[in-house]
Amino acid sequence: MEDNTVRFGLLGCIRFASKFVRTVTQSSNAVIIAISDPSLETANTFAAANNLSPETIAVYGSFDELLNDPRVDAVYLTMPVTQRGKWAVAAAESKKHLLVEKPPAQNTAELEKIVEACESNGVQFMDGTIWLHHQRTVKIRESMFDSGLLGDVRHMYSTMTTPVPEQVLERLTKEAMGLAGAIGELGWYPIGAALWSMSYQMPTSVRALPSSITTNSVGTILSCSASLQFTSTAIVHCSFLSQLSTDLTITGSKGSVQMNDYVIPYKEDTAWFEYTSGAKFVEMHIGWNMIPEKVTVDCGGTEESQEAMMLKEFVRLVQGIKRGESEADRRWPEISRKTQLVVDAVKKSVDIGCEVVYL
Amino acid sequence: MEDNTVRFGLLGCIRFASKFVRTVTQSSNAVIIAISDPSLETANTFAAANNLSPETIAVYGSFDELLNDPRVDAVYLTMPVTQRGKWAVAAAESKKHLLVEKPPAQNTAELEKIVEACESNGVQFMDGTIWLHHQRTVKIRESMFDSGLLGDVRHMYSTMTTPVPEQVLERLTKEAMGLAGAIGELGWYPIGAALWSMSYQMPTSVRALPSSITTNSVGTILSCSASLQFTSTAIVHCSFLSQLSTDLTITGSKGSVQMNDYVIPYKEDTAWFEYTSGAKFVEMHIGWNMIPEKVTVDCGGTEESQEAMMLKEFVRLVQGIKRGESEADRRWPEISRKTQLVVDAVKKSVDIGCEVVYL
Repeated sequence: MEDNTVRFGLLGCIRFASKFVRTVTQSSNAVIIAISDPSLETANTFAAANNLSPETIAVYGSFDELLNDPRVDAVYLTMPVTQRGKWAVAAAESKKHLLVEKPPAQNTAELEKIVEACESNGVQFMDGTIWLHHQRTVKIRESMFDSGLLGDVRHMYSTMTTPVPEQVLERLTKEAMGLAGAIGELGWYPIGAALWSMSYQMPTSVRALPSSITTNSVGTILSCSASLQFTSTAIVHCSFLSQLSTDLTITGSKGSVQMNDYVIPYKEDTAWFEYTSGAKFVEMHIGWNMIPEKVTVDCGGTEESQEAMMLKEFVRLVQGIKRGESEADRRWPEISRKTQLVVDAVKKSVDIGCEVVYL
Repeated sequence: MEDNTVRFGLLGCIRFASKFVRTVTQSSNAVIIAISDPSLETANTFAAANNLSPETIAVYGSFDELLNDPRVDAVYLTMPVTQRGKWAVAAAESKKHLLVEKPPAQNTAELEKIVEACESNGVQFMDGTIWLHHQRTVKIRESMFDSGLLGDVRHMYSTMTTPVPEQVLERLTKEAMGLAGAIGELGWYPIGAALWSMSYQMPTSVRALPSSITTNSVGTILSCSASLQFTSTAIVHCSFLSQLSTDLTITGSKGSVQMNDYVIPYKEDTAWFEYTSGAKFVEMHIGWNMIPEKVTVDCGGTEESQEAMMLKEFVRLVQGIKRGESEADRRWPEISRKTQLVVDAVKKSVDIGCEVVYL
């Protein structure tokens, strides 16, 4: 194994972690050397299901054991959000670089503790908001924002909705979902998209919108819309009661750009967005002077999928630190912190009857 | 000329009225027999530009003269919104059926006077919200709502934005634009779309969203977003400061449907919408189980354009009344009234500092 290779351990063996295993397996400079779960049986089952041979990787029945394994450079945390704060801090104190599923914490205070632990231990922090790493996202930034095709952002709308069967909705407890419920689990995406659209300015205030809010009988938030006040308005919506939707529309002074699959592209190997710039009605208003242009971004099979690009960026940063060439990057934790601040503000607005919350 | 033919007169010769002339010219059971404008020169220029020969049609230099022409069955009103109330009532009292450009009035009180005048004079009222007549609109109602593919409506988002050059923005006075400014002129569309999406339930409350509101130096509203509280939330946005956008997205418990050209289709002879139903992420969340389905509606050249369909519906209703077979239809004026009520409520919310307004 080259010294340049980043050796990962998994903290949590949920089924969804298979995706990360697959991405690492396809990577040339990262490897999984250990997995862990509070249930050793779960860990063993996961190993078998993902072709991780116990002869080459360590399988632990506790997170502590994995954190004590000195060969592990970095950990991927997937345990429920209510436990992420505790274990992320423990991992940082064990000098492990951190890739944490989103939302990385239950609130900003908890997240700041994680980020501080990472800074004082010289390890990298990054949350798992994959779409920010997609080449399409980079392409839109360059081709719409930087080029001037979009102009000034005038309005932004984004959703993340995914249906949960009715009988499961009641089982979404605060212990499993965290205090912010759907706002943390799902709203993280459109709120992050709003910040991204506004080039990481912060909103001056937010307000949850009354009839959008649904809770189950134990008070877990199941759906919520909110307006975020920047120099213009962003609308975000999240829900466990709707069909899958992941819409992102930005309307600017000169153009518009739209994706309906910004969180996870319809297909892994290719993705597209649509835009117009300089659109107007033709004479007599019987049509438009254009139809939206579709721009396709080829991801070269799965090698440049958004997961692969995220891993590549994380590995690049960890390698720099390992070689003593650079310090931990502070941009990614700052994006996480800003997103969490807005998540918290929307949650607070829900708590105080949809009044405005200033940031 | 067959007795069945509906004979139209124009009240107002703005350039945009050419579209109506074109539609009537292509129709087999309607004809323009007179036009009028307070400026006879404007009327004559309009006649020449639209191949309306003064030998076959009357050209009047006042609205009164046209209303006194007993041959005219129905009028199409296009004068500025601030004058529509007065002339619509005068037309109804002259027993003319009314097709009125949107917004038909400055507020609900004015609109109710118009509708009452139509009812007491036995004439048809319809506002010119063309897209409600498009076959695509009908198709979505049947194929998404009625079929159950959409499920219950959980969220709705709609815009109407169109850029006005900076030097013109200051010239948008309340005398020209009406008291509601952009909320009436543009917001009429997304507000109407929200009502349509919610099957003409009324919202229980509305709230304008603070940072979305822009006014010019004379206080005319140039942009505004608002949330409308139904059993779920609808978001509407209108602006003279953004590029052209006419988005309509409805997210339901089972499916989603979307158009980006609902007000005026990109092309006159064909139109499409996109939908998903039963969408979910595939195993490992590396894609979706489907991509949106595109449904195309052929409009048979321009003969079944949305303008043609609106005219057809209006003519059908007027013919029924003329033959004494039916009374004036009350569904269209009711749609206008509900739309105007919500426009007024959003305007009121702007006036009281974006507080909630109950309906």
